[in-house]
Amino acid sequence: MTLFVVGSVALDSIHTPFGETADALGGSAVYFSVAGALLHPVHVVGVVGSDYPVAQLDRLASRGIDWSGVERAEGESFRWKGKYSYDLQSRETLETRLGVFANFQPRIPEALHASRFVFLGNIDPELQHSVLDQVTAPQLVVCDTMNYWIQSKKPALMDLLRRVDILMVNDGEARELSGDWNIHRAGRWILAHGPKRVVIKQGEFGALLIEPGRTFYVPAFPLEEVFDPTGAGDAFAGGFMGYLARAGVANSDHLRRAMVYGAAMGSFAVSQFGINGFDGVTTVDVEQRVRAFHDLTHVAEAERIP
Amino acid sequence: MTLFVVGSVALDSIHTPFGETADALGGSAVYFSVAGALLHPVHVVGVVGSDYPVAQLDRLASRGIDWSGVERAEGESFRWKGKYSYDLQSRETLETRLGVFANFQPRIPEALHASRFVFLGNIDPELQHSVLDQVTAPQLVVCDTMNYWIQSKKPALMDLLRRVDILMVNDGEARELSGDWNIHRAGRWILAHGPKRVVIKQGEFGALLIEPGRTFYVPAFPLEEVFDPTGAGDAFAGGFMGYLARAGVANSDHLRRAMVYGAAMGSFAVSQFGINGFDGVTTVDVEQRVRAFHDLTHVAEAERIP
Repeated sequence: MTLFVVGSVALDSIHTPFGETADALGGSAVYFSVAGALLHPVHVVGVVGSDYPVAQLDRLASRGIDWSGVERAEGESFRWKGKYSYDLQSRETLETRLGVFANFQPRIPEALHASRFVFLGNIDPELQHSVLDQVTAPQLVVCDTMNYWIQSKKPALMDLLRRVDILMVNDGEARELSGDWNIHRAGRWILAHGPKRVVIKQGEFGALLIEPGRTFYVPAFPLEEVFDPTGAGDAFAGGFMGYLARAGVANSDHLRRAMVYGAAMGSFAVSQFGINGFDGVTTVDVEQRVRAFHDLTHVAEAERIP
Repeated sequence: MTLFVVGSVALDSIHTPFGETADALGGSAVYFSVAGALLHPVHVVGVVGSDYPVAQLDRLASRGIDWSGVERAEGESFRWKGKYSYDLQSRETLETRLGVFANFQPRIPEALHASRFVFLGNIDPELQHSVLDQVTAPQLVVCDTMNYWIQSKKPALMDLLRRVDILMVNDGEARELSGDWNIHRAGRWILAHGPKRVVIKQGEFGALLIEPGRTFYVPAFPLEEVFDPTGAGDAFAGGFMGYLARAGVANSDHLRRAMVYGAAMGSFAVSQFGINGFDGVTTVDVEQRVRAFHDLTHVAEAERIP
C-alpha cells in the first residue's frame, strides 16, 4: 500500500534547557517519514532550497524513505528557530523563514497518483486541496493543519474537511477550529463537518481518537527524560500512518492500534534533539515499546467482585 | 473493612460560567464520603461550626456515611469561595474563612481506632500525624496534601511520607514537593521518600499510579458537559478508597481497578454543582461507568501482524 506525505522539509534551530541545535534536519515531512518508515516505506513530497544538505536526506533513504518527490528549488530552504521554556511546556518561535516553501506548489509524482494512504502535512489548505486533486483512489486521507490556516484560510479548510477521512490536530487547534473549549464537543463538531474520525493530540497527556459514539485514549509513554518536543506530533502521525499502510486496513480496531504506534513514535522523537531520537531505533524496538503501552492502561479482570 | 476519612466539612460558594451556589455542602471529607459510600460505608472525622446545616449531612447518612466522628464546635464553619475561568481550566480563590477548622484537633472515635483503611485528607501534616498516632493497625494509609503545607510544613510532611502507603496529590503538588517538573521523575522522587506508591491526579487528563518500575494511566471519562470541577479530586479519592475497602485487598491489580473507580467518581462529581452530581447515582451506575472505561483504552489483539 503506497503511502506518501506532503509537508515541510526544513532546517530547525532549537533551543531547549538541555542545549541547542542549528540548521538541523526538521519539518513535518521529515519527522513523519523517519517515524513512518520504521513500519512501511514512505514517499515524501516537498521542496528544499539550493542550500539544503541533501546528502543528509540521502543517508535517510536507506531507512525506507523515498525523497524523489522533493523538488529542489533555487533559493533558501524553510528555516524555523524556536526556544522552549525550562519545563518544555511552552515554546516561542524566534524566527520563521519560509524561503522556497513560500512558493511551494506540490506536484505529486505520477508513480504516487494511485497511492492509497495520503498524509497532508500542515500546509496551506489550498495546496492540500491540490494534492487531493492529483490522487486517483486514496483509501485513507489524513490531514493536519494549524492556527495560522484556521485563521487565514477557514473556507478552504472547511471545504477540505469534507474531502478527508481523519483530521489530526492538537487540542489547541481543535478548540480554535470548533470555537469550543470542551475537547469532546470540539471533536464532535469536527465530525459534523466532514471527517469520519478526528485525532486530537495532547502532548505529554497523550492523544484521543474520536469516532461517532466512541472515544479511544492513548497516554503518552512515561519518560523521565524529554529533551526536545519538536516533531513529536509529526512522528505520531508517521507511526499512525505507517502502521495503517502496513496493515492495509483502517477500521476502528486498526485505528486504535495505529494510535499506539503513533504514541510510541512520539516517545522516540522527544528523547533526543531533532530526529536523533530515531537513531538506531529498529522495528523490533518499536514493537517492544508498543507492547509496553499495553501494561500502561491494562486492568486485570477481577477474579471476584467482592 | 472499616474506612474513615479525616478532612474538611465545609460550605462552598462557587461561581462557574454556568451559574453559582452559595454555602453549599463541600469540603474534602464530604466529596470523599459521598463518592466512597457508593462502594463501602465511610466514617467521617472532622469539625463543623454551630452554623452548619447538619440536617443536610444527616440526610446523606442514609447513603452509608457515618458522621458521628464530626465534632460540632462553637463558631463559624469553614467556608470557601471560588470562581472558575470561562473554560474551567483555572480558578481563583475569592475567600477562605477557616472558622472552627483553624483549631481542629482530630479525635478519632474509639470504634475507628482499629480501622484498616485510612484517608488523610488535605489538612496540616501535624494533624495527619496525630491521626496516625490514634490508629492501631491500618492496612492502607493514603494521604493528600497541598502547596500550602508543602511550603509551610515541609519537615512534618516529609516525616509523614514515611508513615503512609500512598501519597495522592495533583500534578502541581507533585512538582512542587519534588522540585522536579517532570512528573515521572517527581513520582520516583516521592517513592524514594517513603510511600510505596504515588497517585498523581491530572484533572481533565486523568491520573497516574506510579509504583516502583510500573506506571498505570487512567484517563478522565470523556464528558461533553462539565459544570463544576470542585471536589473531583476528593471524589476520586473516595472511589479509590471505597473500592479498596470493599475489596479488602490493595495489591497492584486492585489498585489499578481502584484508579478506575476513582476516575468514575470524578466524572460524576464534575457533572453538576457541588455534590449534586451524585444525586440519584447508584452502585449500578458506578459499575456501568467503570465498564465504560474499559473501551476507552482497549486495543483489540491483532489477528495477524501484517
